[in-house]
Amino acid sequence: MVAAAKEANAEILKVAFHRFEPHGVSGVVVIAESHLSIHTWPESGYAAVDFYTCGDHTDPWRACEYAAQELHADSMLTTEVKRGIASTNGQYTHVVHEHAGRATAKRSA
Amino acid sequence: MVAAAKEANAEILKVAFHRFEPHGVSGVVVIAESHLSIHTWPESGYAAVDFYTCGDHTDPWRACEYAAQELHADSMLTTEVKRGIASTNGQYTHVVHEHAGRATAKRSA
Repeated sequence: MVAAAKEANAEILKVAFHRFEPHGVSGVVVIAESHLSIHTWPESGYAAVDFYTCGDHTDPWRACEYAAQELHADSMLTTEVKRGIASTNGQYTHVVHEHAGRATAKRSA
Repeated sequence: MVAAAKEANAEILKVAFHRFEPHGVSGVVVIAESHLSIHTWPESGYAAVDFYTCGDHTDPWRACEYAAQELHADSMLTTEVKRGIASTNGQYTHVVHEHAGRATAKRSA
């Protein structure tokens, strides 16, 4: 995930990972532009990954594609959430784009 | 966020926070049941907070309500994402419930 953060052109601030027994990992990379997180369930062949960035100089999709490649993902289902959108009433909202991925399958099984 | 994790009945594994100058904080609590994260923009009166838990013994909404209370949030907009749902084709999917919050305003301004 550190490498994925670099792929996204993010500035890494903190790294916190935990390895579970007998398998699986949970970890987060706090970046200057928010965070990347991963939780894996190797026994199920499943990983849940978040790429949360801010600003114009980062590209979370590059991190996403890099992680999918490194995880040898057969398939990838993505949802994009645009957060912190200022409303006219002074509050903030977010917008969900389901299955917004630039790629939905990295390789065949 | 550590206290919020305890409110959710989560087991805390790692804590990683970064304080920005002149203000704002980014931080993550890795829990046995996934993670909690926060990013604040005090200059805008905005915070983006994730409560990601697994299992039946945790309640992310308790953590959410606790955080909103501690942040003195005038308003709160929530979206619930149920992740890692097994599909019949052996893949995993997720389901988004927009603005699913149990509470939308913690106190009046």
